[in-house]
Amino acid sequence: MSFPTDLEIAQSADIQHIKEIAAKINIDNDDLEYYGKHKAKIPLKYIDEAKIRNSKLILVSAINPTPAGEGKTTVSVGLCDGLNKIGKKAIAVLREPSLGPVFGIKGGAAGGGYAQVIPMVDINLHFTGDFAAIEKANNLLSALIDNNLQNKEHSLNIDPRTIVWKRVMDMNDRSLRKIVVGLGGLSDGIVREEGFNITPASEVMAILCLSKDFEDLKTRLGNIFIGYTFDKKPVFARDLKAQGAMAILLKDAIKPNLVQTLESNPAILHGGPFANIAQGTNTIIATKTGLSLADFVVTEAGFGADLGAEKFLHIKCHYAGLKPDAFVIVATVRALRYHGGAKKGEYEKPNLQAVEKGFENLDKHIENALKLGLKPIIAINHFATDAQDEIDFIQKKCDELGVKAILADEFTKGGEGMRELAAAVAESAESGENNFQPLYDVNDTIETKIGIIAREIYGADGVNFSQKAKSQLKTINNLGFDKLPICMAKTQKSLSDDEKKIGRPIGFKITVREFEFAAGAGFIIPILGDMMRMPGLPSVPASEGMDIDKDGNITGLS
Amino acid sequence: MSFPTDLEIAQSADIQHIKEIAAKINIDNDDLEYYGKHKAKIPLKYIDEAKIRNSKLILVSAINPTPAGEGKTTVSVGLCDGLNKIGKKAIAVLREPSLGPVFGIKGGAAGGGYAQVIPMVDINLHFTGDFAAIEKANNLLSALIDNNLQNKEHSLNIDPRTIVWKRVMDMNDRSLRKIVVGLGGLSDGIVREEGFNITPASEVMAILCLSKDFEDLKTRLGNIFIGYTFDKKPVFARDLKAQGAMAILLKDAIKPNLVQTLESNPAILHGGPFANIAQGTNTIIATKTGLSLADFVVTEAGFGADLGAEKFLHIKCHYAGLKPDAFVIVATVRALRYHGGAKKGEYEKPNLQAVEKGFENLDKHIENALKLGLKPIIAINHFATDAQDEIDFIQKKCDELGVKAILADEFTKGGEGMRELAAAVAESAESGENNFQPLYDVNDTIETKIGIIAREIYGADGVNFSQKAKSQLKTINNLGFDKLPICMAKTQKSLSDDEKKIGRPIGFKITVREFEFAAGAGFIIPILGDMMRMPGLPSVPASEGMDIDKDGNITGLS
Repeated sequence: MSFPTDLEIAQSADIQHIKEIAAKINIDNDDLEYYGKHKAKIPLKYIDEAKIRNSKLILVSAINPTPAGEGKTTVSVGLCDGLNKIGKKAIAVLREPSLGPVFGIKGGAAGGGYAQVIPMVDINLHFTGDFAAIEKANNLLSALIDNNLQNKEHSLNIDPRTIVWKRVMDMNDRSLRKIVVGLGGLSDGIVREEGFNITPASEVMAILCLSKDFEDLKTRLGNIFIGYTFDKKPVFARDLKAQGAMAILLKDAIKPNLVQTLESNPAILHGGPFANIAQGTNTIIATKTGLSLADFVVTEAGFGADLGAEKFLHIKCHYAGLKPDAFVIVATVRALRYHGGAKKGEYEKPNLQAVEKGFENLDKHIENALKLGLKPIIAINHFATDAQDEIDFIQKKCDELGVKAILADEFTKGGEGMRELAAAVAESAESGENNFQPLYDVNDTIETKIGIIAREIYGADGVNFSQKAKSQLKTINNLGFDKLPICMAKTQKSLSDDEKKIGRPIGFKITVREFEFAAGAGFIIPILGDMMRMPGLPSVPASEGMDIDKDGNITGLS
Repeated sequence: MSFPTDLEIAQSADIQHIKEIAAKINIDNDDLEYYGKHKAKIPLKYIDEAKIRNSKLILVSAINPTPAGEGKTTVSVGLCDGLNKIGKKAIAVLREPSLGPVFGIKGGAAGGGYAQVIPMVDINLHFTGDFAAIEKANNLLSALIDNNLQNKEHSLNIDPRTIVWKRVMDMNDRSLRKIVVGLGGLSDGIVREEGFNITPASEVMAILCLSKDFEDLKTRLGNIFIGYTFDKKPVFARDLKAQGAMAILLKDAIKPNLVQTLESNPAILHGGPFANIAQGTNTIIATKTGLSLADFVVTEAGFGADLGAEKFLHIKCHYAGLKPDAFVIVATVRALRYHGGAKKGEYEKPNLQAVEKGFENLDKHIENALKLGLKPIIAINHFATDAQDEIDFIQKKCDELGVKAILADEFTKGGEGMRELAAAVAESAESGENNFQPLYDVNDTIETKIGIIAREIYGADGVNFSQKAKSQLKTINNLGFDKLPICMAKTQKSLSDDEKKIGRPIGFKITVREFEFAAGAGFIIPILGDMMRMPGLPSVPASEGMDIDKDGNITGLS
């Protein structure tokens, strides 16, 4: 008998009514806003700053992943279950999945095996509508911009050639990357170049993730930079009086979503993914809500720590005033084989030599963590294809580096397979041994900040800027946005900006092709290599295998 | 003290928990899927064909409206409250509002004054996410089409010049009407002309409205016509294996939404509006659910009866196997002044002469109803600015035509102001005096069917077809879609296709500019005059006056 699929496990789960889950963390049933029986929104009033200071924040990140992913969400969910198993009051606070990849290759993002958040289908589809609301708020601003170009009587005199604000859609849809809008004639708008990003890359998503409350949300929305007038004055969303209506569209999206793990432990999902093209961490509101309701919060930041953890620390912690109390790096034997040179089709076969070589990728992430003031614990996410000598090697090497490496068996065993890791993480969190220190000062120049990330985190020799990027740097400086943190857009597959450079690349420089900037959210986005902020579908999209029967039973979702 | 705004009335309402409303119509609390405390989805199993045959369906439509609208939704809600007031078990089954106009001029569509469905803000914003789901299903198909053009190894050989399927967005956004996608280069798709319609105009919306169950939904989605291959074979959504994934995206949207009126009577909102550019009636599933749960269902079809009622009867009734048991035409003194030649700024001033002249518009709608086998009851939606002699005139003229005209005072008095109308409507519904007979046979040619609607309903002398329309007619015939009902896209402001022709225009022909067709939903869309299926925003969008405070209180929404 083969191991059941994630969907089969999720569908056969003994799911509890969400009010039962809420009761475990002392949320009053009357305060819940149900979305069906298994999802609910939590009001903002549960944030309790005094309690937050006494709770422990556990950050889970990973080494550079193979295209299949190394199970960071799975480990995070399993770690939450493991902590509860050993008697700790823990909650997983994770990001919501994007719908785009669900129909592509990657599938959803609700964990896997016996470490999942459920209801899995709902979570991977529209969930509680947060992404739809963010998309609408983003695109309302776009409509208001184009409408202002069209209507001469109420005009801000915006130069359409300078508009940097893009529309978004939560879909893998490469044909929308570069488009021309406003064709048709006098009544159909002004012709201009435009493009769609995927919704998680929207600045509105980042603003939601970084806002503390409605006031902060509105202020940040109003501060979105749009472009220039013909007489070269900057134009912001507030000039279009857009922030009130945009905030109204986000009135429910701002509230964190409560679900459960397969083991009926509470999980909060809120905010958007993709630390390769966005800031990619869950919302400050969700993290603070979790810290207010439990003693331990397990949160994740991916893909690899070079993107996810770096941004979590330098952007999210910066704005939230939080620091992680423990840091977990997920590694897999499979990914180390890959970094050691194993070829496609061979990742699943034992190969000690490749693991020995590939360890350098993990080594670099450990080194980075220590630089940041964090003592990582390595979670070896266990696969059936792992050989004992490979695992032994990883543990021995980590031991030499003074770092624990512990097998994580959540996929097949759930929380029961995470007792050892949970105990080590809880001990680390309570020890006070972690004390994050930023590698850069936000008041440094943009070039300096990018240079520090490139050299210290990626291991690069330096940074090249394209002509376009150089010109945009001047713009950013002129607008006074140079004192903002940096949100790199980089491939997750390599420590460098070239996805083919596996392991621990050396002797390279990264190239900033262009900038986007998020003046409202509060960061600058250098775009490296050929990164796209709107993905495409594969030649055979996953959607082709999906079905729903006459009773509403779903198959083919992963 | 001025009369409170709709929002003020809605916000101060004594709103009940939705489980209390559900209990009134014997829905088991365990069967409800809550969306917060005041909205819930009803499972499909409540449809009971035996009960449906014994319940009465009341259709509310209107004369051709002024730009402000004549209060069709308000009368429908008030009539439901009125029926309950006189001891009838009645439910309002209405359409969901589109988000686009909320930020434009028209505002939301949840009724007004003391005849509203609540929670008004939620209903007018994302509600339960149905529109977002429909938008996503529509745009998934678009992404799959463009992806198929891009990927040569799995290609259907689609000729991009022949693609008729458009993307949608629930936004008033004229700049998206005509666009070019796929610019950028090799990795960014194939360049082609494209356009966005507003989401209620999506064929997916129409399919949802006309489907009986999941099987029917999937079949219709699979039958969506996309375009041709380079060797001129038709391509359908099923060729892209899209229908399963699209149906999964609609798994919750297919379920009707339960809310309440201000008087705590049940109301079901489900399906999309805009009978000018779409079929614009609520879903068959919602109507049948309503008929299964109550003795009287009040439903609406607008804008005017020339669009809404005609489509309700020839499309929805055709597919649902339903017929209305009573028919209400909403008229206002204001609109009759308008049709009688009163100029802008004068609609609110008593003007008997204009009303006498403008009555010809109502007269034509009464004549049309009788042709269709329906004996209408006229609801004079009462405004403070109505003069008694104007009302007397309307009632006298209707009396001469053998038709009742009754004052509807729902705006200021709620159900209490609707007792007389409710009694007359209930009597009509129970009398068996209404027996709808279609004016055309679906097996007629498209030209014949359009001709019948134009002559019999609009009062036109005939129909012109543009060169483009003529060419498209051949395509439609070749594809075998000519046996489908007709869904006219026409201005709501006139019985003709020229919005300036008020009253009861004569001596005109309508012009079919082009066709769209909905092979999956099952109708052909002749587009008349300069109708656009994507609206624009006004020069000062309503969004500018909207705000939300630190506690989440909303202002400026109408």
